[in-house]
Amino acid sequence: MPDVILGPNRYGKAETRLVRVVREGEVHHLKDVTVSSSLSGDMEAVHLTGDNATVLPTDSQKNTVYAFAKQYGVDQIEDFALLLARHFVESQPPIHHARVEIEEYAWERISGDRPHSFARKGGEVRTCVVHHDRDGRTTVVSGLKDLVVLNSTGSEFHGYIQDEYTTLPPTTDRVLATAVAARWRHGAEGSAYGKSYEEVRRCLLEAFADTHSLSLQQTLYAMGKRVLDTRGEVCEIRFAMPNKHHFLVDLSPFGLDNDNEVYFAADRPYGLIEGGVLREDAPDAAFAWE
Amino acid sequence: MPDVILGPNRYGKAETRLVRVVREGEVHHLKDVTVSSSLSGDMEAVHLTGDNATVLPTDSQKNTVYAFAKQYGVDQIEDFALLLARHFVESQPPIHHARVEIEEYAWERISGDRPHSFARKGGEVRTCVVHHDRDGRTTVVSGLKDLVVLNSTGSEFHGYIQDEYTTLPPTTDRVLATAVAARWRHGAEGSAYGKSYEEVRRCLLEAFADTHSLSLQQTLYAMGKRVLDTRGEVCEIRFAMPNKHHFLVDLSPFGLDNDNEVYFAADRPYGLIEGGVLREDAPDAAFAWE
Amino acid sequence: MPDVILGPNRYGKAETRLVRVVREGEVHHLKDVTVSSSLSGDMEAVHLTGDNATVLPTDSQKNTVYAFAKQYGVDQIEDFALLLARHFVESQPPIHHARVEIEEYAWERISGDRPHSFARKGGEVRTCVVHHDRDGRTTVVSGLKDLVVLNSTGSEFHGYIQDEYTTLPPTTDRVLATAVAARWRHGAEGSAYGKSYEEVRRCLLEAFADTHSLSLQQTLYAMGKRVLDTRGEVCEIRFAMPNKHHFLVDLSPFGLDNDNEVYFAADRPYGLIEGGVLREDAPDAAFAWE
Amino acid sequence: MPDVILGPNRYGKAETRLVRVVREGEVHHLKDVTVSSSLSGDMEAVHLTGDNATVLPTDSQKNTVYAFAKQYGVDQIEDFALLLARHFVESQPPIHHARVEIEEYAWERISGDRPHSFARKGGEVRTCVVHHDRDGRTTVVSGLKDLVVLNSTGSEFHGYIQDEYTTLPPTTDRVLATAVAARWRHGAEGSAYGKSYEEVRRCLLEAFADTHSLSLQQTLYAMGKRVLDTRGEVCEIRFAMPNKHHFLVDLSPFGLDNDNEVYFAADRPYGLIEGGVLREDAPDAAFAWE
Repeated sequence: MPDVILGPNRYGKAETRLVRVVREGEVHHLKDVTVSSSLSGDMEAVHLTGDNATVLPTDSQKNTVYAFAKQYGVDQIEDFALLLARHFVESQPPIHHARVEIEEYAWERISGDRPHSFARKGGEVRTCVVHHDRDGRTTVVSGLKDLVVLNSTGSEFHGYIQDEYTTLPPTTDRVLATAVAARWRHGAEGSAYGKSYEEVRRCLLEAFADTHSLSLQQTLYAMGKRVLDTRGEVCEIRFAMPNKHHFLVDLSPFGLDNDNEVYFAADRPYGLIEGGVLREDAPDAAFAWE
Repeated sequence: MPDVILGPNRYGKAETRLVRVVREGEVHHLKDVTVSSSLSGDMEAVHLTGDNATVLPTDSQKNTVYAFAKQYGVDQIEDFALLLARHFVESQPPIHHARVEIEEYAWERISGDRPHSFARKGGEVRTCVVHHDRDGRTTVVSGLKDLVVLNSTGSEFHGYIQDEYTTLPPTTDRVLATAVAARWRHGAEGSAYGKSYEEVRRCLLEAFADTHSLSLQQTLYAMGKRVLDTRGEVCEIRFAMPNKHHFLVDLSPFGLDNDNEVYFAADRPYGLIEGGVLREDAPDAAFAWE
Repeated sequence: MPDVILGPNRYGKAETRLVRVVREGEVHHLKDVTVSSSLSGDMEAVHLTGDNATVLPTDSQKNTVYAFAKQYGVDQIEDFALLLARHFVESQPPIHHARVEIEEYAWERISGDRPHSFARKGGEVRTCVVHHDRDGRTTVVSGLKDLVVLNSTGSEFHGYIQDEYTTLPPTTDRVLATAVAARWRHGAEGSAYGKSYEEVRRCLLEAFADTHSLSLQQTLYAMGKRVLDTRGEVCEIRFAMPNKHHFLVDLSPFGLDNDNEVYFAADRPYGLIEGGVLREDAPDAAFAWE
Repeated sequence: MPDVILGPNRYGKAETRLVRVVREGEVHHLKDVTVSSSLSGDMEAVHLTGDNATVLPTDSQKNTVYAFAKQYGVDQIEDFALLLARHFVESQPPIHHARVEIEEYAWERISGDRPHSFARKGGEVRTCVVHHDRDGRTTVVSGLKDLVVLNSTGSEFHGYIQDEYTTLPPTTDRVLATAVAARWRHGAEGSAYGKSYEEVRRCLLEAFADTHSLSLQQTLYAMGKRVLDTRGEVCEIRFAMPNKHHFLVDLSPFGLDNDNEVYFAADRPYGLIEGGVLREDAPDAAFAWE
């Protein structure tokens, strides 16, 4: 048999849990994030012979996260990810490429006059993935996940293919619910990421609500288009949106009608719609989505 | 060996997922709950011989949840649970006792002018457990879970037992974080459960924030006392509160101090504090907590 | 309003993850367990004023688990739990009662001639809960959970109550599947716990398979009875068994019959059957089940 | 701003739970799988205008899974996935490409003489991903996940980069544990997938055990190389292997040494090693890994 060779590879520390407190006198500020780093580069020797001379330990990557949190603080997650990614590549010649992924969990003050007490908000998680390589290429993808939304009307589904296995009846009024996972690519580095996030999130919610939907694909596209039409800094957006089925319960055996009032919210199986929208002149994505 | 006998038993349908929509013209209202029912009574024959003559199928229990949602609507979960529990006991003589547990997930409107579009709020889950038996005894326990809170200062821990396995250093300033699971028993049926829930939740949050804490037990007790001091309808409250440890990261190897700024949020193990507060003259709890 | 008082309470360290290796020359042995301890006693002061003088920190409890693992090894989990529970009560007068719960995850050798390489087995988790108090009362409950079993025939369900909400058709041949969670109480301390566990597990599996079932309750009872009839050291057993519904898919729209061949395995809702079997002369359970 | 366009997209039914029973007289056979299908093709209209004329509903995809399970049975999951993928593409001209992913959960007989009673094995999950497009290109990737393995000795880690954030001490004897997720690509369609799976699994386990490891990367590569050296039908294999850290507990405060005996098994963060091994002359992967 012919020779075998090493394929694509990367390694790092996943899910470093970091909470950063900033004290402004009595008033405290809180950042709660999970950081994952992945490095690649001159890694043939470590795979073939276990020679670790080019390996920055994952434990050191974790330490760097904590040390940088102290030294530079954690404001927008994209900026913190950029700082880390650049550091790994620039400080270690064998590391050619760094990927840093961050999740942020939102907290809110318990009340305005309780300056160091917080409750976790729940709802969606803010995310980002940053790549940086030794050729100076950098990509920034922002995102969110677990944004669960529902329209109780304004959704239809009909006119689809009828094959021999089709039993679904068409409907002109159904519940449409999904848990939005969206990631959007910035056309250039240096957005005001906090403001950008808030506005993209608002676009997503409003476009979801405003679209009279003939299919979840149509809603997805409308959400992406709204973001691109509104936010110049975003050049591409991608979605994974489960169709969280809400089935109308048949109450006729009990002599009751069900005029879109009582639903069974099913777990599995679920539809899964994946798709993206991008500008015609979007710059090359390089490794942004990996 | 002596004879074996049937011990305590109950059966039912767990986790029926119900979404109820109410349409007021253009404006829709949404309730999203999970209902679990458990029945007991004359169940010796079914266990010993498989004679199902006294068994109301769990499938019928599920159907009842959906039919009642249509017929009576779902407003406060305690009231809906009472309706179901009474129905099972009163309609079926072999059923002597019913337990109904409901969880409610909060949603909010995407915006005021989008009358049928919603986003799930996340954060805590509202709960209740209602018991009703054929002797007319009824207990109502309301609650919440997954209310994650954190004080970034105002918490100390010292003065504890030092045994040969104690290595923990005392501290006068630590992060205190927990995920509150609380259940509170109503002294009598018939509270205005919606208003009561909002007020108990507020008491819990405010007491958590306001208590300068020497131990999580002290905070737990203060939270319970605040509820009982404020809400006359509640006669007892019980908590399970994990101590979600936030460990200060040792940055000294990097020449950095860490003045309560950078924390590692640990998963396991965790402290677990369970305890309750009740009125001296609280009525007998009967089966309320089961 | 009348005075409020402290209710039942306990505290401890939950889910301490311990892996213990024993080296017999080249041949290694592995124990993989999760230990949770809960203590109670003179805890009024800590709740009311935050005075920790009677509090053995949960961190020290964790340390004790690791130190004892070194000093005494970990053989049968019940014996290790007894050791810990006794230690906490006997070494600290303010601690009146200790509860120790252990889960064990099974591993097997990758092969006989690879003496220090293991693969996790999956399947059920072995459990125990031990209580010990300063009056010398001790209870030992062994158990297992996540033992998923299925009979593809030999299960019927009919003859049940038909109320106005009943639509379930009777069946004389269905799939019966459940995830067994069982806990059994030892009549006296000092069983050979390893052998006992293997035999109880065997009884459970065989009784599940051998029972022609008219209801899951009947199967549950038969499983419990088999254990008590066979194992003299066990005086009571309790179960929680979800009815993992396997619904026959209606293939008639496609011109196909479905003679108990093609099933949809549903997640939620599910039936939940809880019940126990005990000897008529079983000793008082005290706090064994808490 | 320039025009926006539709990017890559696909849609389908995720996680259809199928249990298939085959009855050979008294002796039954059981297959327990989860099937996810994803289709793509002429989907511009549905995204831009909600015109569903090219959309085969995800509900019909689910129905097809059940109908095919009846008509053709489910033997090797790769073969069943191929059947489905071909059907979707060949029966619907607007569908240009189908991806079918299947997970299989293993069961074993409770005993040899109980011909229709089964217990779920736990341990690893078998997986496959099959692609087929209208140009006749087909790729088959088999795999497994959640295969948790541990070497209690024979693992070292030293000689790595020491930067200013490195504090990890080198070690010549540590526990090495991981949960193997591996996917391997077949060089051509038509392997005997059942036999192939068993042999690849054996190679993975044996190479894990046999490799004296200087890094998890080295172990990963050795596992991949063993598969390629042994199994001619496999042309590439990819891994994601978390380093499930087992930290030696410091028992010195208690006057105890810890000679690789007592470990804390940590949850997060964890190292994550991803990499692959392939033949130099492996055919183009096309969309195999997507």
